[in-house]
Amino acid sequence: MGAMYYETLGQMKRMLGQLDKWLTTAAAHAQKKSFDPNVFLGLRLAPDQFPFVRQVQSACDTAKLAAARLAGKEAPSHPDTEQTLDELHSRIALVIAYLDGFRANDFDGAATRVISQPRWEGKVMSGGDYFLQHALPNFFFHLTHAYAILRHNGVDLGKRDYLGPLPLRAP
Amino acid sequence: MGAMYYETLGQMKRMLGQLDKWLTTAAAHAQKKSFDPNVFLGLRLAPDQFPFVRQVQSACDTAKLAAARLAGKEAPSHPDTEQTLDELHSRIALVIAYLDGFRANDFDGAATRVISQPRWEGKVMSGGDYFLQHALPNFFFHLTHAYAILRHNGVDLGKRDYLGPLPLRAP
Repeated sequence: MGAMYYETLGQMKRMLGQLDKWLTTAAAHAQKKSFDPNVFLGLRLAPDQFPFVRQVQSACDTAKLAAARLAGKEAPSHPDTEQTLDELHSRIALVIAYLDGFRANDFDGAATRVISQPRWEGKVMSGGDYFLQHALPNFFFHLTHAYAILRHNGVDLGKRDYLGPLPLRAP
Repeated sequence: MGAMYYETLGQMKRMLGQLDKWLTTAAAHAQKKSFDPNVFLGLRLAPDQFPFVRQVQSACDTAKLAAARLAGKEAPSHPDTEQTLDELHSRIALVIAYLDGFRANDFDGAATRVISQPRWEGKVMSGGDYFLQHALPNFFFHLTHAYAILRHNGVDLGKRDYLGPLPLRAP
């Protein structure tokens, strides 16, 4: 079952690559409309939701921590200090490079590994439950909110930009 | 590898159960503020994005079609005729019941099954690629947009409502 986590983390990595492209589209939109592109970092869909910058940071951290925890490794620390789209590009690149370092067999036995994190106050979940019920939905939550904040604010993105190129072939 | 699809579809089913609860929270919010709860169905985050009703329908269809296609079955047809939150509750219940009918071994061989759909104009993908690169990100795209539309319009939801109860236990 290690392959399940490896393949799904590979898809998260692919989606982070798309997120990186949305930043570029957002910057081009700002330039065209003559506003500071880094304004995007503070935008949010509701006053008590995370702003764009934290949606991006959270998507990055969810993928990074899922890979590390399921493989029993310590994740590199990426302090949430980004103030520009360029710095967010760098953050995403760091996480993609980190995910590139895993192989399918790093996740052998991950389903039954005991996972915890500070906010669970001493409680634990199995690796299988953690991945499917926590990491996977959280990753897409923050990724999609990043997309939705840009779309809501006029950036010209569509479903193809979300999904990226699909491996379609002749039958 | 059939278990991978079965388990991830099980998580989609769990998230559809959460979506059902968000509808109830939205209806209570409308009642408290004295507006027609079915107004939510037409709300959207951008004028050229799907409205709430179609985000819900699309989340339902993505999960339903993924299960059917990967198992080589024909999915039941659910015409997109919902005009009320009550009708959306029913739509979600139909899909959850449909997903309940699958077993892990329905998805044996799904990774290499040849998948197509009309909009791909004759091209195909493997079941593995289709699930990870198309169905999974699309499901969470529409699910999260449904959540975000409600949050943006004042419905009191939080991350716990999104994730649902987590299987935390003592170590």
